[in-house]
Amino acid sequence: MAYETVLYDVADRICTITLNRPDRLNAWTRQMHLDLKDAMHTAGAAPEVRAIILTGAGRGFCAGADMGGLQAIGSGASADRSTKAQDGLPGGSTLPEFRMNYSYFPAIPKFIIAAINGPAAGLGMVIPLYADIRFAAESAVFTTAFAQRGLIAEHGVSWLLPRLVGLPTALDLLCSARKFRAPEALAMGLVNRVIPDDKLLAEARAYATLLANTVSPRSVAVMKRQLWEAEFQTLAEATTQANHEMELSFQTADFKEGVAHYLEKRAARFTGR
Amino acid sequence: MAYETVLYDVADRICTITLNRPDRLNAWTRQMHLDLKDAMHTAGAAPEVRAIILTGAGRGFCAGADMGGLQAIGSGASADRSTKAQDGLPGGSTLPEFRMNYSYFPAIPKFIIAAINGPAAGLGMVIPLYADIRFAAESAVFTTAFAQRGLIAEHGVSWLLPRLVGLPTALDLLCSARKFRAPEALAMGLVNRVIPDDKLLAEARAYATLLANTVSPRSVAVMKRQLWEAEFQTLAEATTQANHEMELSFQTADFKEGVAHYLEKRAARFTGR
Amino acid sequence: MAYETVLYDVADRICTITLNRPDRLNAWTRQMHLDLKDAMHTAGAAPEVRAIILTGAGRGFCAGADMGGLQAIGSGASADRSTKAQDGLPGGSTLPEFRMNYSYFPAIPKFIIAAINGPAAGLGMVIPLYADIRFAAESAVFTTAFAQRGLIAEHGVSWLLPRLVGLPTALDLLCSARKFRAPEALAMGLVNRVIPDDKLLAEARAYATLLANTVSPRSVAVMKRQLWEAEFQTLAEATTQANHEMELSFQTADFKEGVAHYLEKRAARFTGR
Repeated sequence: MAYETVLYDVADRICTITLNRPDRLNAWTRQMHLDLKDAMHTAGAAPEVRAIILTGAGRGFCAGADMGGLQAIGSGASADRSTKAQDGLPGGSTLPEFRMNYSYFPAIPKFIIAAINGPAAGLGMVIPLYADIRFAAESAVFTTAFAQRGLIAEHGVSWLLPRLVGLPTALDLLCSARKFRAPEALAMGLVNRVIPDDKLLAEARAYATLLANTVSPRSVAVMKRQLWEAEFQTLAEATTQANHEMELSFQTADFKEGVAHYLEKRAARFTGR
Repeated sequence: MAYETVLYDVADRICTITLNRPDRLNAWTRQMHLDLKDAMHTAGAAPEVRAIILTGAGRGFCAGADMGGLQAIGSGASADRSTKAQDGLPGGSTLPEFRMNYSYFPAIPKFIIAAINGPAAGLGMVIPLYADIRFAAESAVFTTAFAQRGLIAEHGVSWLLPRLVGLPTALDLLCSARKFRAPEALAMGLVNRVIPDDKLLAEARAYATLLANTVSPRSVAVMKRQLWEAEFQTLAEATTQANHEMELSFQTADFKEGVAHYLEKRAARFTGR
Repeated sequence: MAYETVLYDVADRICTITLNRPDRLNAWTRQMHLDLKDAMHTAGAAPEVRAIILTGAGRGFCAGADMGGLQAIGSGASADRSTKAQDGLPGGSTLPEFRMNYSYFPAIPKFIIAAINGPAAGLGMVIPLYADIRFAAESAVFTTAFAQRGLIAEHGVSWLLPRLVGLPTALDLLCSARKFRAPEALAMGLVNRVIPDDKLLAEARAYATLLANTVSPRSVAVMKRQLWEAEFQTLAEATTQANHEMELSFQTADFKEGVAHYLEKRAARFTGR
C-alpha cells in the first residue's frame, strides 16, 4: 500500500499506520483524511492483520487542521467501504454512530492502539480518542485548541471526551484550551500509559503482539463491537446481544481451541474461525 | 438456610454469603447460580438483614465457569422471586434491566459488598461487578479470560465494565484477557479498596456495620434503587423521581428519627419505616 | 446587585457569587435559592462577565438545608429567566433537563467554578455538582448526609454524582453518608483541584482569568452547551450538532481573531461575536 500522506506497514500480524507529513508536525489535510480512512479499512479487512498501531512520523503526532486547508475539511464523506472483514472474521459495527466523518475507528474489526509520539492539538487530539486505547510518549503535549481559535467542540469530541475523562475535565480541557502533558493525560484517563519516548513504539508493539498471539481474533472483533455498541444500549439489550453472541461462539473453532490449549497447557493457535 | 454450594450466615444485622466449592476455587456451576440467587433474595427480604457481604471460601473468590459444565450455564432462568422486602421496607428495582440471568443484584433492596478474597476469572470476575461496591484482598488476581477461550463479553459485562473503569480500560481488559492484580484494579476503579488478605473480611464487616447502625435502611433501599435506575434515566426523569421519593420520605418515622437523633446528639435508631 | 443571602461582585470580567449566611455555615433557605438563581442568571446575561465563581462566606461552603425550613424548600419554582445572553453572545442550553429546581447552572452560558471553601453537606454538596468544575480548600469536608436524616438522593444527585465519581463511589457516598475530606474528593474525581485554604480564591480567580482573557467567550458558551447536552445525545447527534456549530463559528469575528492572533503571535482580543 502506498499513500501520499500516511505510511502503511505490516509485520508480525501488526499493521502500523504512520501519519507522514513530519515537516508540518503531521498537520491534518483532506488528503490525509482520505488516506487514513483507506488504510484503516484495508487493515481492518486484511486477514493477516490482528492489531493496528496509529502513530506519527517525526517529532509530532498531529498538529491539528492544516491552517491552509481548514475550511476544506469535512466537506465530503468518502464512500464508506464495507466493515465486513474477509476470510471469515466477524465484521465491525454497522451502527450509524460509527459512520460519521471521523467516527469510523470503532467500526474497524481490529484493535487500534494510538501511539501518541508528540504534540497532539485540535483535530489531532480528537482523532486518537476514537482508537481503542492510547499510549503516550513522555514528552507528548496536548491541547484541544478550539476555544483559542474561536471554534467549537468538533467532530464528536463533545460526546467522546467526557466518556474518557469525565464531564468536568472535558469542560476544563475544551473551554480553557490549556496545554497539558502526558502525566496529566494519564491521571485524567485520557491515555492508558505513559512511556519513555524511545520505548513508545516497542511497547505499543509488545501490546499488539499480545493481542496477535494469545487471544482469539474473533473474540477481539466481537468484543470490540459489543463494547462500543454498549454505549448506545441498555443493560438488557447488551445482555441479550451477549447471549446471542455466546451461543454463536460455542460453535466456533476458536472456542474449541480456547478450551484445548488451556487443558493441554500450551500456547493458543487461534484462526479467527 | 442450608445450600449445596454457598454458605449463608447472619450476625449483627449483616448477612455473609460465601461461595463454597473451595477445592475448585469456587468454580461456577448451575447449582451455585441457583443457590446464590436464592440466598440473595432471602437476605433481601429478611427484616433482620441490613447489608450483605459476598465472598469466597478458601484461597479463591471464583475461578469462572466450571469447565465441566460450561454449556449448561444460563440455559434456564429460575422463576424470579419478588424483590419486595418484607416488614414495610421499600422493595428493590423492578426494571427489566435487573431481571437478566446475572443482573439481579441491583434489584435486591440491601447494599451488597463484594469481598474478593482471591482469584476472580471470567464469570467469576463478572458476578461481583453487579455488587454495589468491591473490596479486594491484596493478593487477589483478576482476568476476564473470555478472549483466551474464544468467547465473548458475557452476561452484560460489555455494558457494566465500561461504566466502572471507562471504555478504554474495558477494551483493554476484555480484548487482551491479561491478568492484573488488586492495586491495578484499584487504580482503574474496578475495586473501591485494597486490603491486606487477613483483614479483608473484618473491613467489609466494619463497612457493613456502618450501614447497619448509622443510616436509615429505608434510605439505603430507596437510594440504591435510584442510583441503579438513574443509569437508564435522563436528569429530568431522575429528578422527578427524587422529588416524589422526597415527599414520601418526609412522612416516615425514619425521617423523624433522622432529625431527632441529630438535634439530640445521640446515636440513631432507625427502623426502616 | 444587592441580595439578602448572597453577595454579588464583578471585577476583571469575573463574577464572584458568595453564599452569605456565615453564622449558619451558609445553610440553605428558600430565599438563598431565589437569590442565587437570580444572581446566576444576571451574571449569565451580563456582557462584562466571562466566568463565574461560586463560594461561601466564613468558614463553611454550605451546611445543607436549614433545619428550620426543610419542608419549605423546593415547593415552588421561580419563573425561569431567559438563558439567552445579551449583546450577541450565544445563549445557554434550553433543554428541559436544565430547568429543574436546582439544575439550571448548565443552562447559564458562562463557565461556573465552584470554590468549596469549607464544609459542604447534603444539598450543600449537591449544588456545586452542577458547576462546571470544582476547586476545594484543603480543609473542606463533604457528606451527602441524606441517609442519616432518613431522606433520599435529592434533586438529581442520583443522576449527577455517578457521572462525576462513578456508580460504585456514588453508592458508597450516598448510602453510607460518611464524611470525607478534600484529598479523597480529589482522588474520586468529585473535585478537580485541592488548594491550600488561603490560596483557594486566588487560584479560582487565576483559572477564571485564563478563561476571561485567552479564549473566545462565544466558544466557551457553545462548548459548555455542547458538553452538557451531549449527556443526552448519541454520538451521531452530537456530531451533527457539532458540524452545524462549526459552520456557524466559521462566520464569526472570534474565528477570524482566533486565526489572526495565532499567526501574528500576539494575545487574543475576543469579543464573543
